[in-house]
Amino acid sequence: MAKWSKFGERFTRPTGARQLMDDLGDALSGDHPVCMLGGGNPAHIPELEELFSNELRRVLDSESDYRRMLANYPSPAGEERFRTSLAELFAREYGWQVTAKNIALTSGSQAGFFQLFNLLAGPQADGSFKRILLPVTPEYIGYQDVGIRAGMLTALKPTIEEFDDRTFKYGLDVDNLTVGDDIGALCVSRPTNPTGNVLSDAEIDSLIAVASAQGVPLIIDNAYGMPFPNIVFTEVKPVWNDNVIMCMSMSKLGLPGLRTGVVVASEEIIDALASMNSVLSLAVPSVGAVLLHELVESGRILEISKNIIQPYYQQRVNAALEWVHESLSGTDYRVHRPEGALFLWLWFPEIPISSNELYHRLKARDVLVLSGHHFFPGLDEEWQHRDECIRVTYSQDSESVRKGIAIIAEEVKRAFSEA
Amino acid sequence: MAKWSKFGERFTRPTGARQLMDDLGDALSGDHPVCMLGGGNPAHIPELEELFSNELRRVLDSESDYRRMLANYPSPAGEERFRTSLAELFAREYGWQVTAKNIALTSGSQAGFFQLFNLLAGPQADGSFKRILLPVTPEYIGYQDVGIRAGMLTALKPTIEEFDDRTFKYGLDVDNLTVGDDIGALCVSRPTNPTGNVLSDAEIDSLIAVASAQGVPLIIDNAYGMPFPNIVFTEVKPVWNDNVIMCMSMSKLGLPGLRTGVVVASEEIIDALASMNSVLSLAVPSVGAVLLHELVESGRILEISKNIIQPYYQQRVNAALEWVHESLSGTDYRVHRPEGALFLWLWFPEIPISSNELYHRLKARDVLVLSGHHFFPGLDEEWQHRDECIRVTYSQDSESVRKGIAIIAEEVKRAFSEA
Repeated sequence: MAKWSKFGERFTRPTGARQLMDDLGDALSGDHPVCMLGGGNPAHIPELEELFSNELRRVLDSESDYRRMLANYPSPAGEERFRTSLAELFAREYGWQVTAKNIALTSGSQAGFFQLFNLLAGPQADGSFKRILLPVTPEYIGYQDVGIRAGMLTALKPTIEEFDDRTFKYGLDVDNLTVGDDIGALCVSRPTNPTGNVLSDAEIDSLIAVASAQGVPLIIDNAYGMPFPNIVFTEVKPVWNDNVIMCMSMSKLGLPGLRTGVVVASEEIIDALASMNSVLSLAVPSVGAVLLHELVESGRILEISKNIIQPYYQQRVNAALEWVHESLSGTDYRVHRPEGALFLWLWFPEIPISSNELYHRLKARDVLVLSGHHFFPGLDEEWQHRDECIRVTYSQDSESVRKGIAIIAEEVKRAFSEA
Repeated sequence: MAKWSKFGERFTRPTGARQLMDDLGDALSGDHPVCMLGGGNPAHIPELEELFSNELRRVLDSESDYRRMLANYPSPAGEERFRTSLAELFAREYGWQVTAKNIALTSGSQAGFFQLFNLLAGPQADGSFKRILLPVTPEYIGYQDVGIRAGMLTALKPTIEEFDDRTFKYGLDVDNLTVGDDIGALCVSRPTNPTGNVLSDAEIDSLIAVASAQGVPLIIDNAYGMPFPNIVFTEVKPVWNDNVIMCMSMSKLGLPGLRTGVVVASEEIIDALASMNSVLSLAVPSVGAVLLHELVESGRILEISKNIIQPYYQQRVNAALEWVHESLSGTDYRVHRPEGALFLWLWFPEIPISSNELYHRLKARDVLVLSGHHFFPGLDEEWQHRDECIRVTYSQDSESVRKGIAIIAEEVKRAFSEA
């Protein structure tokens, strides 16, 4: 039995992320049919698949594009031409003062968080220790384990507003929001994974203000947001300034196999990420950058996001929400207002079994979901609420989603009947 | 001015790898013409580019292959079908007892070394500290900075055998090879980057024996080796056993934009890498795995490597070597026997300027090489030899290589004349 280093022990522990990716890999490898309501695999939208295929064929028809995509190492911050075009799109659409020097690509969005969290928090040269503050939990499972040291996250409980239609919405608890000297950065996902929440413009303004006052950056995880893939069902405005680190992804466009994340930040942060890219992985993939270049340069990526992706998910989430209300009728349940992302977040107040037990019972019936308890990274205090929720992905085929939701309802009702 | 964490300070230092990738990115982005004899970009071989383009077109014609490549997250260890086919190829060709469970993909070979070095060395749970032993320097620049803590590498000086034809060859100094309890693993590149050395079968057997005796793995960095890309000009046999960690790359096939590394190791190591993949990057790219699948499954990858890649580089290295002898005639120089990889390693005994000064003088003349001093990671003792060598990549266009070598000769002669 090999003995790992401390780093090795930390990064080979059983984690929610590994469980999630194992479940996802098993389900998608197609060994046996399951209702895959677990991972965050984007939907297969035929119109987009055709579009991306055509873009890729066009790349193959050009020797210089082929080489840019496959045959040459890019610069440490990632493929230069794409970064330039993306900066121009941000400047054009939103008036942001950015150039290619404000953009770095990473080997997927998760790799970007590994780099950013460990750059901005953890042990400091002066012997102190800084943490990343997650001001609104529930928050993304992937943040949990990326710190090279334990204890790098701290988090706040949200406010909860309940509505008459069995929906609810988490909010920023402004009254308890304090940012001490032990905080290296704040981080929120918007739209939020796992809840589908979209923090309001006012909430983001509050976060920007407290971060600036403390002189630390605000990281906004925009993997599902604007301008692409724009899986957002409310009206909010994208924001960026020199103190905001905006993280984006190509995955939710339907391209998770590329592993390309995008970070928009101050030149200083970008230069640091470029250095880290060199040492950690020599270079980051260019496939996505070259594949999407023309769509970004022309601005077509905005139309695609607005006219294809957003309506597709809007229709899917509406259907899934209806099935939830139908199936769970008669049970005590709540569902978070689905304002964006690929998920429904279900809350079963006072359910007699833990959400993790519910996960296992559902898995035994070939329905994969994620137990809500994974989504409170950095929140140390006891809170029964976190064992009462599950995340349900609605992006896979409708039949699976409908069937899965029906089975979830059966198991929840059975659990309540055991009380 | 932002303050980084200790991790941040360590991974944003100026490094040889960052300098190399900056140089490479600048040169390839084509802002102005330079003789790019610096980085390790593989050659553009038209026959291969056509082949890979056709493979990619075939993927796009299949909905299931398209989705496997671009639209689905793979398992934590990487795309399953490719790993199975590659294991079958190893079993068929070399008789190795491996399955898909012995293979993990990483986000490029460098990312694999980050994971492996930090898994096997660094601070241990019992308070001790382990290091990676590089038994034959010069050794790959990329190993230098991947440790999350300083001091994670230690190295041995090589033996040097000189030949009548101005060539020389480094060897394993078996007499000084001891592996103490502070060593977590041994690592060698074979073919060696930067020297083009290929350790003999006997040398590898010695390393396997001492590693096994100490109960630590031997990492063999096979980025240029067999079965692909097979940029090897001598007769050696590839070896693997449960105590060997063999690392491979798709980059030197001509596909560095993919960022896909391959690790063949015990199931225990592979499972650890899969966990690390999940946490560090959620998943690794599938593009290369699906692109190369048919070539690996059919075994055509072996013919391509043997009949296209190997002869191509053999012809290129012969030409470059001839230009070196022509241009440097009359100067005191040595060149390492080029037995594999993309590089000529030139040694100028007693040259009055450092190799780093020579690098800067050449850069000022638009010839990019790498100073040899970067290639002694972990070697702490003084040794003038390490400031007397440069690495020259011969894989770019012939005209650049010929012209670059001529300018190198001019600058070396000028340096000697300053003494």
